[in-house]
Amino acid sequence: MKAAVFHGAQDIRVEDVSAPSGVAPDEVRVKPFWCGICGTDLHEYAVGPIVIPTQSHPLTGASAPQILGHEFSGEVLEVGGRVTHLRVGDRVSVMPLISCGSCFFCLRGLNHLCQSMGCIGLSFQWGGIAEECVVPARSASKLPDTMSDVAGALVEPTAVAAYGVDRAGVRPGDSVLITGAGPIGALASLYAHHLGATVYMSEVNPHRQELALTLDVGELFDPTKVDVVEEIKSRTGGVGVDAVIECSGNERALQTAISAVRSAGYVSQTGLHTKPAAIDPMILSEHDITLGGTWCYPVTDWPRIIDLIGNKGLPVEKVVSAKISMADIVDKGFETLLSPKGDQVKVLVRSHD
Amino acid sequence: MKAAVFHGAQDIRVEDVSAPSGVAPDEVRVKPFWCGICGTDLHEYAVGPIVIPTQSHPLTGASAPQILGHEFSGEVLEVGGRVTHLRVGDRVSVMPLISCGSCFFCLRGLNHLCQSMGCIGLSFQWGGIAEECVVPARSASKLPDTMSDVAGALVEPTAVAAYGVDRAGVRPGDSVLITGAGPIGALASLYAHHLGATVYMSEVNPHRQELALTLDVGELFDPTKVDVVEEIKSRTGGVGVDAVIECSGNERALQTAISAVRSAGYVSQTGLHTKPAAIDPMILSEHDITLGGTWCYPVTDWPRIIDLIGNKGLPVEKVVSAKISMADIVDKGFETLLSPKGDQVKVLVRSHD
Repeated sequence: MKAAVFHGAQDIRVEDVSAPSGVAPDEVRVKPFWCGICGTDLHEYAVGPIVIPTQSHPLTGASAPQILGHEFSGEVLEVGGRVTHLRVGDRVSVMPLISCGSCFFCLRGLNHLCQSMGCIGLSFQWGGIAEECVVPARSASKLPDTMSDVAGALVEPTAVAAYGVDRAGVRPGDSVLITGAGPIGALASLYAHHLGATVYMSEVNPHRQELALTLDVGELFDPTKVDVVEEIKSRTGGVGVDAVIECSGNERALQTAISAVRSAGYVSQTGLHTKPAAIDPMILSEHDITLGGTWCYPVTDWPRIIDLIGNKGLPVEKVVSAKISMADIVDKGFETLLSPKGDQVKVLVRSHD
Repeated sequence: MKAAVFHGAQDIRVEDVSAPSGVAPDEVRVKPFWCGICGTDLHEYAVGPIVIPTQSHPLTGASAPQILGHEFSGEVLEVGGRVTHLRVGDRVSVMPLISCGSCFFCLRGLNHLCQSMGCIGLSFQWGGIAEECVVPARSASKLPDTMSDVAGALVEPTAVAAYGVDRAGVRPGDSVLITGAGPIGALASLYAHHLGATVYMSEVNPHRQELALTLDVGELFDPTKVDVVEEIKSRTGGVGVDAVIECSGNERALQTAISAVRSAGYVSQTGLHTKPAAIDPMILSEHDITLGGTWCYPVTDWPRIIDLIGNKGLPVEKVVSAKISMADIVDKGFETLLSPKGDQVKVLVRSHD
């Protein structure tokens, strides 16, 4: 079968690999429909391997070369003997985190912080950018008929974004600033708007600004043109917003977040910061501010996010800026997403012809 | 009457001032017993005025010269006509924060973040290091007979310390590292131990180490001699503590806190950091860590803290390292607390002869 395989930095190949043969009793075999390219994938391509193991992964045994893809929907082709919640032909979204179930964190229900965590498409035998894959049955959740195959590939980033907003305790009636309108920022904006918050966004990239405006969820600020903190203060009686969801991974945006949030407010640091950042802890003190880093999502959020998209109409497909074929994954996927012109938001790859 | 009055940096004078004459219907007149010298007072003495207003305070009308003292116990000498919860002769502890009651934060019950907050002994007509003062009756809470006058002067710093621990959501069975064993760190250690947590402390100052050991609440580390993060990891199965209460205001201690806490743990930044700090936001992300700055305490915590000390036996008097007379406040109080030898923890001043 065809698969997109990571061999090393700048070395992703679409090549023939052995298809899976059969499933264990607790597994399902899936034919992926669509799979998103994520920031983690980009890091692996640019300077990896980072997350992708070069030696046998302690939990999954996987190591590079690695079939990529951890944000995907698909159709069930085969179910193991102990699987009761899925049938052949079901359309599913796959929660990619693989946890041990018995470490300190798993025993406390924090499986997303498993001490030997693996991830389908990064540190697992299979991935979503391939004609077939095998995954634990409990990782696959059935999509409602109302939900498209494309939306099914967006459950993963939506779960990330929702966790960022949830960690901040955002409630209807609250005001929220979302810094950065990449895929996670855009999805966080949709989620915060859906739950009844007043949403403000900030974004420097003109292409992402354009997409942000199509979301129609609230006012958008360009930090290269206005002082975002001043704009926020002027709209909140000088007080600041109840929460900021920092989705850019940018030091200055983090500083903006800490200054734009109100006293006793919450800054959810959802974007990944690859460099140390200078912050002023006195602002956190004087204003009783909470700063929470978020990692992935509670794995049990999956069915809720599917329901939100499939049955409650969260329009997540708006964040898709391109759909490409597997053959084009390097040129129209990785290279385009990493190019300085930055005209893409979320790129989906079709995992079959 | 005699009072300790702030006139400017390095200029605190014990002098004769007019005693209060009568009370408004919602006020009480109090004869202070003991009053603590706090870090805020030290900052005012060293480089102030900072919090002390030089022009009329918007809420209280106060301005320097300012009678000092905001951590005090005393006896009620007179009650206003509408006061029902106190009688002449009652022993009280005074919650010093003065809030407007009607701003964004007060309307949400966050009076400690009042937009025009004043404070008895810093930005109010009266203070606790004086033979008499007048305070709002609702600020004074009666002490149980089981509680000493000295303990009554420690309710304020105990409320600060308890809020730091409470913000981290510490529960019985949790493990907690407290960085810094000054008054707040020592009180936080007592509080965390009382609620059933396993307590670790770290402190560099030999005098404070000595006092920390007398608390008998848990193991003490000297960061100049051991790697605190390693010591914590070795005692927690490599995982880290559930919470760190950072009480030192030191950048390195904040970095230690972020590295010593477990994934999904909480770092409560309770000490005041007067300088920017470099942190690694990726640690917060990868480990789902929450960092909360704390400011003062919920004003409604006062009766609970009094009950905890007076009726449940929290031994807060252990943190008192010296009791001095008002006449000695500069030499044995401010100068000693600011001296490089740093052999004091909490100094209490007797507010009357």
